[in-house]
Amino acid sequence: MAKKPNILFVMADQLRADFIGVNGHPTIMTPNFDKLASDGYNFSNAYCQAPVCGPSRMSFYTGRYARSHGAVYNGVPINVNEQGLGNYLRPLGYRVGLVGKTHMAKDIEGMRRLGIDSESSLGVLLSQCGFEPYERDDGLHPDNRVSPDLAYNAYLREHGFAGENPWHSWANSGVDENGELASGWFLRNSHLAARIPDEHSETAYMTNRAIDFIRETGEQPWCLHLSYIKPHWPYIVSEPFNTMYTSDDVREAVKSDERSSHPVVDAFRQHEESVELSKDHVRKQVIPTYMGLVSQVDFHFGRLIEFLEKNQQLDNTLIVVTADHGDYLGDYGLGEKDLFHEPSVRIPMIMKMPTSDGLTVAAGSTCEDLVESIDLVPTFIEIAGGQIPTHILEGRSIIPLLEGKITNEWRNFTFSETDYAYRPARKMLKVLPSDAKILMVRNKRWKLIMYQGFESQLYDLESDPTELYDVIKDPQNEKIIKELEEAAFEWALSRKSRTTVSDEQIETAINPKSRGIYFGVW
Amino acid sequence: MAKKPNILFVMADQLRADFIGVNGHPTIMTPNFDKLASDGYNFSNAYCQAPVCGPSRMSFYTGRYARSHGAVYNGVPINVNEQGLGNYLRPLGYRVGLVGKTHMAKDIEGMRRLGIDSESSLGVLLSQCGFEPYERDDGLHPDNRVSPDLAYNAYLREHGFAGENPWHSWANSGVDENGELASGWFLRNSHLAARIPDEHSETAYMTNRAIDFIRETGEQPWCLHLSYIKPHWPYIVSEPFNTMYTSDDVREAVKSDERSSHPVVDAFRQHEESVELSKDHVRKQVIPTYMGLVSQVDFHFGRLIEFLEKNQQLDNTLIVVTADHGDYLGDYGLGEKDLFHEPSVRIPMIMKMPTSDGLTVAAGSTCEDLVESIDLVPTFIEIAGGQIPTHILEGRSIIPLLEGKITNEWRNFTFSETDYAYRPARKMLKVLPSDAKILMVRNKRWKLIMYQGFESQLYDLESDPTELYDVIKDPQNEKIIKELEEAAFEWALSRKSRTTVSDEQIETAINPKSRGIYFGVW
Repeated sequence: MAKKPNILFVMADQLRADFIGVNGHPTIMTPNFDKLASDGYNFSNAYCQAPVCGPSRMSFYTGRYARSHGAVYNGVPINVNEQGLGNYLRPLGYRVGLVGKTHMAKDIEGMRRLGIDSESSLGVLLSQCGFEPYERDDGLHPDNRVSPDLAYNAYLREHGFAGENPWHSWANSGVDENGELASGWFLRNSHLAARIPDEHSETAYMTNRAIDFIRETGEQPWCLHLSYIKPHWPYIVSEPFNTMYTSDDVREAVKSDERSSHPVVDAFRQHEESVELSKDHVRKQVIPTYMGLVSQVDFHFGRLIEFLEKNQQLDNTLIVVTADHGDYLGDYGLGEKDLFHEPSVRIPMIMKMPTSDGLTVAAGSTCEDLVESIDLVPTFIEIAGGQIPTHILEGRSIIPLLEGKITNEWRNFTFSETDYAYRPARKMLKVLPSDAKILMVRNKRWKLIMYQGFESQLYDLESDPTELYDVIKDPQNEKIIKELEEAAFEWALSRKSRTTVSDEQIETAINPKSRGIYFGVW
Repeated sequence: MAKKPNILFVMADQLRADFIGVNGHPTIMTPNFDKLASDGYNFSNAYCQAPVCGPSRMSFYTGRYARSHGAVYNGVPINVNEQGLGNYLRPLGYRVGLVGKTHMAKDIEGMRRLGIDSESSLGVLLSQCGFEPYERDDGLHPDNRVSPDLAYNAYLREHGFAGENPWHSWANSGVDENGELASGWFLRNSHLAARIPDEHSETAYMTNRAIDFIRETGEQPWCLHLSYIKPHWPYIVSEPFNTMYTSDDVREAVKSDERSSHPVVDAFRQHEESVELSKDHVRKQVIPTYMGLVSQVDFHFGRLIEFLEKNQQLDNTLIVVTADHGDYLGDYGLGEKDLFHEPSVRIPMIMKMPTSDGLTVAAGSTCEDLVESIDLVPTFIEIAGGQIPTHILEGRSIIPLLEGKITNEWRNFTFSETDYAYRPARKMLKVLPSDAKILMVRNKRWKLIMYQGFESQLYDLESDPTELYDVIKDPQNEKIIKELEEAAFEWALSRKSRTTVSDEQIETAINPKSRGIYFGVW
């Protein structure tokens, strides 16, 4: 029997879909991502299930929508009985490792209640969404709470970058015009070069760790989640990426039409990150750095591909490059993510299938079907030869789509959610923590955004691809609004909570009579 | 400090709300339930969250809708990380015991995955919805799979009722005209007297065990779930209850108007229990027995009240009598339950508050507000002096309602669900196991029943209290249909899955900046 294909699941945090060359950015350089697309597939309509790190990642890892896994915002622990990728792939013979970020908060209360020691080997897996934490590093290490055990800091010190927290003082800081240390936490310093040679940057280091994992794993099939922290802030990057782009590479910010004013969006516009990133001089300084961070990730990803090639593992590996969400970068008067404009909710998704398993797919194509982050878990299970637990997973394997076996019955709608309970916007609007949900439902043409307690928004992506005009009030849209609302209703009613019994078990359930139980029998 | 009030949570399985004297049945004798109502409150619009044992009970015990706890049908294991009544009351100093049925299926797969030994003391609690299983007995013990350890069988043998399975051969069988053993599993035998004196019946025995539990518990505050198996089938009852009612006590069956034909309901009408229970001679034989079983439960419940009174515990105990669902008993051409006519989905709910804690409520009133089974957990937590975890529980404490503190903002809609994946009706209709959901949304006047994949039904309970005419197609009802659908949509979107973080924790969440994390700061 042929060796099962490996799975290289690469995530770049906060990487906007349109900041990749093959996705049409005019000047960004991402030759390795572009090459992957030309060797594989580029999904141009891929969406995250929540435009925020934590819930989006939990959807990626569990194959379930945010409301189903329940970890609806950063820091919300995921129910200890939710299953992750590792739970599915490990029994199929895979080593399932993590290098980098997951943003998973463990369910300490649940573990206590269930008598599970979080330090035990089981407890560790349960604390890592089922991944073996080969190198867990969520990538944000402020001086006042950096772990003394942070491996990257130990690495930096070994290489001569001394101090309590070289992650901050070297890798995420620069030196300003006066020769003073300038923290990357502050946007004003984003133009400076990080004080670290690129070869010792976080991105380089994580790539090395990924190579270590693959090398160490040897012959066993593996699934590696290489989860880059960048291009997520702190926005600061090492040479040569620091000078690769200039303000000339910064496209004009997308400015919403005033008809697109909405109480919730407007409240987000008052957030500090929105106010700052909306300023032209800030964008012109930050975006070139953001682009440099993207190119840096691309560069090191290229090294990893090279390593796989040298080790004759490239052909037998499914490779996917994606992101947990995008980044507004000042478009629409917004910073960060959270909301549902395309720069925030659309994600890059480039996938190369293993060529050794007989799949005959046309390489280099772009797939415009609506793909969701929750599709990865079933795709991986299928490629690993497992049975997809359809009573738990809410996504679909992409493989039949790539095989051309699915045409128009694939998926008519995609859904993404936010819970802004933790954000200042909620307090500004005097909304209760339980009432801060937003749901996006989108088909290929239309996007409806439904706000708990506020009016919905509607965009026509065909006539208005940059989402300038909210057309919710246009009477001629009543029909499409109804259709999208009905899809959302059906979706809400169809979430999978009966996770302990499979459909097959129901189909083959034993008749009560054969168990000696009679009812309604004369 | 005064002793915390005890909680006596009595459930009678499959007890129709209208088969209680105080609820208007013309001839049934339930003096003890009636007395409880005159000393307390009678909720005339109480609804179960699922008109089937398992999911309804899991809603009673977890305080959450069926789609939230996920155990949507009998035998579907409940996620091991769902919390039950015991989890909430035990930390408040209560002994939380079970006598009788829960219909809980434990999450063996989840326990295995989480390394929990189901035989350990924790495992046992997790297998019993958080109840200490003082005497767990689900009440159905066919000869071919009766447990050799069934305590009630040991009891029967001790009292001279010999055999492999005296539960069946004595307590749930009669002797027919030819002197042959006649099993209570078959409706044709329901007129016979059970071969057991009433004092050794299941209902008597469970009551005795409840008394044992209370006596044994002594001074500690307790919550006892006394969960009677009867009047659930096998429909057979001991003397004198066997002859208490005759066919004269059987009201005419409610016959649906043909305009109320519906594919799903019609498929249920083809079930054997529907066909049989629709026959007049069957109803005339079964219903008097059913009534006898109800009076038997009432009688023994009266003994328990007497015991509490003698032991000076009556005043300090919250007592509630309810049921998991009703019983069609041939009305609408249906047997059993599962669907949403009032005889199936409405439940009795009679509650007497502890009189020692200073509540000033007018005794003997009937409360017409919409009350749900999930309201009991928060009510019990409040009476026990605990904090209601509103991020997990989906019901509301009834206490403010009884205190007159809540008027019209109580609850406008009630919801109940069925998943008929396991039922023959689904296969008849060629529906997939994942597509067999039904949702009822009801306000005080209207009831909308929404079927996955089929048209909805609408009943006007004001003009048509017996639900004869489905008025979904009446154009003048468009507005109310829209209103009910919107309520259902809002409800579906508002289910509570963020159960690991409370609203209070969110309100007091620490600002990222104070943790040294800066984003969007120039």
